[in-house]
Amino acid sequence: MEKEKKFVEAITSMDEDFAQWYTDIVKKAELADYSSVRGCMVIRPYGYAIWENIQKELDKRFKETGHENVYMPMFIPESLLNKEKEHVKGFAPEVAWVTQGGNEPLTERMCVRPTSETLFCEHFAKIVQSYNDLPKLYNQWCSVVRWEKTTRPFLRTMEFLWQEGHTVHATAKESEEETIRMLNLYASFCEDFLAIPVIKGQKTDKEKFAGAKATYTLEALMHDGKALQAGTSHNFGDNFAKAFNIQYTDKDGKLKYVYETSWGMSTRIIGAIIMVHGDDSGLVLPPKVAPTQVIIIPVSQHIEGVLDKANEIKDRVCKIARVKMDTSDKMPGWKYNEYEMKGVPIRLEIGPRDIQKNQVVLVRRDTREKYFVPMDQIESRINSLLCDIHNSLYNKAKAIRDEKTYTVSNMDEFKEVAENKPGFIKAMWCGDRECEEKIKEVAGTTSRCIPFEQEHISDKCICCGKEAKYMVYWGKAY
Amino acid sequence: MEKEKKFVEAITSMDEDFAQWYTDIVKKAELADYSSVRGCMVIRPYGYAIWENIQKELDKRFKETGHENVYMPMFIPESLLNKEKEHVKGFAPEVAWVTQGGNEPLTERMCVRPTSETLFCEHFAKIVQSYNDLPKLYNQWCSVVRWEKTTRPFLRTMEFLWQEGHTVHATAKESEEETIRMLNLYASFCEDFLAIPVIKGQKTDKEKFAGAKATYTLEALMHDGKALQAGTSHNFGDNFAKAFNIQYTDKDGKLKYVYETSWGMSTRIIGAIIMVHGDDSGLVLPPKVAPTQVIIIPVSQHIEGVLDKANEIKDRVCKIARVKMDTSDKMPGWKYNEYEMKGVPIRLEIGPRDIQKNQVVLVRRDTREKYFVPMDQIESRINSLLCDIHNSLYNKAKAIRDEKTYTVSNMDEFKEVAENKPGFIKAMWCGDRECEEKIKEVAGTTSRCIPFEQEHISDKCICCGKEAKYMVYWGKAY
Repeated sequence: MEKEKKFVEAITSMDEDFAQWYTDIVKKAELADYSSVRGCMVIRPYGYAIWENIQKELDKRFKETGHENVYMPMFIPESLLNKEKEHVKGFAPEVAWVTQGGNEPLTERMCVRPTSETLFCEHFAKIVQSYNDLPKLYNQWCSVVRWEKTTRPFLRTMEFLWQEGHTVHATAKESEEETIRMLNLYASFCEDFLAIPVIKGQKTDKEKFAGAKATYTLEALMHDGKALQAGTSHNFGDNFAKAFNIQYTDKDGKLKYVYETSWGMSTRIIGAIIMVHGDDSGLVLPPKVAPTQVIIIPVSQHIEGVLDKANEIKDRVCKIARVKMDTSDKMPGWKYNEYEMKGVPIRLEIGPRDIQKNQVVLVRRDTREKYFVPMDQIESRINSLLCDIHNSLYNKAKAIRDEKTYTVSNMDEFKEVAENKPGFIKAMWCGDRECEEKIKEVAGTTSRCIPFEQEHISDKCICCGKEAKYMVYWGKAY
Repeated sequence: MEKEKKFVEAITSMDEDFAQWYTDIVKKAELADYSSVRGCMVIRPYGYAIWENIQKELDKRFKETGHENVYMPMFIPESLLNKEKEHVKGFAPEVAWVTQGGNEPLTERMCVRPTSETLFCEHFAKIVQSYNDLPKLYNQWCSVVRWEKTTRPFLRTMEFLWQEGHTVHATAKESEEETIRMLNLYASFCEDFLAIPVIKGQKTDKEKFAGAKATYTLEALMHDGKALQAGTSHNFGDNFAKAFNIQYTDKDGKLKYVYETSWGMSTRIIGAIIMVHGDDSGLVLPPKVAPTQVIIIPVSQHIEGVLDKANEIKDRVCKIARVKMDTSDKMPGWKYNEYEMKGVPIRLEIGPRDIQKNQVVLVRRDTREKYFVPMDQIESRINSLLCDIHNSLYNKAKAIRDEKTYTVSNMDEFKEVAENKPGFIKAMWCGDRECEEKIKEVAGTTSRCIPFEQEHISDKCICCGKEAKYMVYWGKAY
């Protein structure tokens, strides 16, 4: 009873307190929990099952594009971290330092990896000698640590899980192609698998990764109008190759530097799933990533024949979808709430009356629409519903994003929108860092990206009035 | 040419220098490499692909037995590690301490997890309230750190990858059943998947896990006669439950402590694969774990028709096995050596003469036997060969183990064998720690386990002459 009560409690509504709504979902859908380790979370079975589905799909796509998995040490000696200057400047202030091993102080302290460029570079320098050794297309699944001041489950945690791809190539052209290839891979993963529409673009110099020549990004818009960087792909050019002396002998017999990329996606994306699709009844999971796609709830299960029929249906459905059945002695209403909270895409109800009518009831999580489906059409209707739900989640998310995307042509308009209308702001920019910083001062709004799909709003930078170079997406971000 | 030369070099022979033979295989089969991080290794694509196959199979078996994956923080605050006294005594001397975050010293230092009992206990205490919440059957894939003085790739590294299962149960009986269930799961995984025969048994009190009531183990024998602990399963009883106050309300309304288990298998097992199956030409991989099961080498591939035919065969074989083809311009002989070094179970050669004869050549890695196989029997012969290779590797390993297992009935015999014949020694023991320690002094030989399958060698402990309680396996261990 204790536990039932806990579940029937409603969560905070999104409009009332978005941050609390988010935290409520994380806890009540049992995605993650806090621990006594500051800023670190416990990822619970349901949350981890979502991550496993993300991993499985991404890993498959990485392998299809020729990438291989490796594992590097989790520690970086300070002298190794210091080798690339921009990189260490960006990361040193936010790393955890190991200074003691067993009972002895270390002669050189090591940080827990915040990202592994330096380790990969050291390894590449050892294994790459000739043009025959190129490219090396590596990926690593691991956890990394960044000493964040304020943390929130999935969105910003001191430790998080991710994958980091690291590749080396013979030419600048190839490394640029790889950087864009992986950005596109992430984009289609977000859209086709997670039903999250994304804007593809390039980060400004101010916002790019520490040590990169160019950082490309995917920007998604959350329900509350804040942006979230869903994945990034960096082209390092030969920056790191020079710092780590990664050279190869080319066909012409000359020693040349390699060109390098890295790209990553993290458990943060689970935060995006929550904030793009969720509603006031809880999580709404896109079908492809949902650990359970169909939950079967037998109604009046004590009546003879109901459980048998439900089991028979489960055996059929498990061939086409990830299905579970709840035969606990809780009330159906309680169960409906629980699986809505957990965002299961389809609920299948089957009771004595349904059996009489030779039908089942299917209920969509996203729209709550109810369908009475003849027994012999269960599989085909579930298949088409899963497909419909994905598309409709994507379209809804895109409509909300478009609705919350504003176009402005001068600083007054920018200020007005930035202060009152959460969302993306499209505005022209001259390309100068000074203007970018001034615009940020207006309302804490940073440049999200220079989108690949440029639009011409006006000829002038909204800040300095000089000739504009780019149309930029601005916004507040997680 | 540079690289070809490197590969044709033979490796050190096993009899000449076993340790060097092992290191040569690790490096030349490109399983792992050293890094500038003391005691940590880089797991290269081929080594990691082996680990991925191990993970995939174990994970499937864990899920089939009702276990769910979770992820706990990688840090443990010192006060949390200190909660269970035996546990902290065992692990504190060998952990890495984080004392600084960013630019600030921590008020409480944290260790990088050497194992995660304490974190799981803290979490269980929060989420377990009633008998309805039990059992919780959790598993975690992660890396852990132990500050080892001397390290060797896979066998003993400061950081290693593993899985750690942690479960809580309502009764002592259930936790004991779980402990044995997981030991059996590991045993059949070792035997059916890795072709490694194992002895199942219990650790003596001296050798058990810090904080456990009972530790069960799988002991495997390496080529050089040294033992390796392939997996362990611990029953904690209510030790940790009391230290962490993990209680639940039972059906009778009373508050009771839970009973807990943990069990683990690590990248160490890759060391066992090398040392149980390898030979003087390199790695020998059991087919089920091999990243590539069949390597196709086209012979005289410049001659018209050869590559077409080879591709046609590859398309057929990829439906039944993990297959790769090497069409590089290296000499076939070089390729034969390389894939022998890498332990690929079957080599398929196809050249102009084979095409004429409507056949291919299959060569087993383990016995080097050569078979001329008609084109229309390729699939069936590969299937049966893969099966044969597995069985024959298992039988060979078992024969070597049996040959190197000695039965002794007094201390003189023990000393004689321990000093001259590397292997397992079976001998009777009274159960007293004092005798166990004296036996260890004889020749650095420790108790490996009290096997489940007991034999009666004599009535007396070989050390003190008093009544023997157990027949014990003794040996030197990795």
